[in-house]
Amino acid sequence: MDPLFTETGVFLALEGGEGAGKSTQAALLVDWLEGLGHRVLLTREPGGTEVGKILRHIVLDNSTGELSPRTEALLYAADKAEHVDQVVLPALADGAIVLTDRYVDSTLAYQGAGRHLDPGEVEHIARWATSSLRPHLTIILDIDPAIGHTRFEGADRIESEPLEFHQRVRAHFLELAAADPEHYLVTNGEDAAEQIHMAVRAAVEPWLSQASS
Amino acid sequence: MDPLFTETGVFLALEGGEGAGKSTQAALLVDWLEGLGHRVLLTREPGGTEVGKILRHIVLDNSTGELSPRTEALLYAADKAEHVDQVVLPALADGAIVLTDRYVDSTLAYQGAGRHLDPGEVEHIARWATSSLRPHLTIILDIDPAIGHTRFEGADRIESEPLEFHQRVRAHFLELAAADPEHYLVTNGEDAAEQIHMAVRAAVEPWLSQASS
Repeated sequence: MDPLFTETGVFLALEGGEGAGKSTQAALLVDWLEGLGHRVLLTREPGGTEVGKILRHIVLDNSTGELSPRTEALLYAADKAEHVDQVVLPALADGAIVLTDRYVDSTLAYQGAGRHLDPGEVEHIARWATSSLRPHLTIILDIDPAIGHTRFEGADRIESEPLEFHQRVRAHFLELAAADPEHYLVTNGEDAAEQIHMAVRAAVEPWLSQASS
Repeated sequence: MDPLFTETGVFLALEGGEGAGKSTQAALLVDWLEGLGHRVLLTREPGGTEVGKILRHIVLDNSTGELSPRTEALLYAADKAEHVDQVVLPALADGAIVLTDRYVDSTLAYQGAGRHLDPGEVEHIARWATSSLRPHLTIILDIDPAIGHTRFEGADRIESEPLEFHQRVRAHFLELAAADPEHYLVTNGEDAAEQIHMAVRAAVEPWLSQASS
């Protein structure tokens, strides 16, 4: 299936490891875009729909215990299918800017590279789940997992994986960005938040003509 | 991926529309096999694991409301991945007879043929979820949906689909059986339960040498 980029609305994804500052950057970006007069929908995966909230609890809560890696990948894919169909595509069709905290790349990195599942299969299923919808721009907040982890308290099922798992995840995000520079921005998560935000603005701005106000 | 048939244990699946008498036949079959001294595990999809019980509630309960058809197919696949890895394969490795109330064929029939999703994609995902594990014998309790429905009270998300949906499902079960007669038995769900049970015994018996007592 060919990648699908919508011609109305702007689809932005924030990706990166734990403790990279996604929440801070999301808030700064939404404030800036709304200040420009755009309609912005901030959403997330997993958990951007009613069913997704249940699935988020299953995949992240420590009380779930062990899950087969394929079960986990399929639950993330189910969350995505519902999110894209019910939330993301309708908002883009309406000309809005959709900013999602995590998207397909997280599945490729965490379930594909992290869990040692067949990466081709994980991608095939995630693309089918999302009708191959791609973000116009994916912003990767890159951070050394050893540093990201020191910023964190409390750990869910994914966060509590060993450092080596998170290093595979980081390497995979960087590979995805290197393969498609037109649709990726990689920022250094150790920079000051305001400095990162200015780089994000510069990368997002060229896409704004697709958004209605 | 090539079909996988285990060399220890016996894997049996019961399939068919609503009201075809699966519960009755499952009980008769388990009694007979246990009477012969076999260890039998009766299980089901969706819902054969702890996570599966949550997923079963999502896909079947009317309170869920509309789900994207791809979401539904992926939730069923996630249920299967967990069921096969945590329940079915360990029991077969131990030499038991595993009887599951519904398996992959239900996904192919209900989500593939019923929901008009791409049947090749639905099968690809269901096979990946289950490591291509196939039942040694699938018993299809065939019944005209118009008759099956009259045996039913209360209807869940799937049962309340229109008759035409259930007719596509029935036709798909029969196609699967016709394509692989060695691993299928089709019985007439309008026959008396004891008559169906005797046909089931005859079809199951040749596989019993694989089961330990």
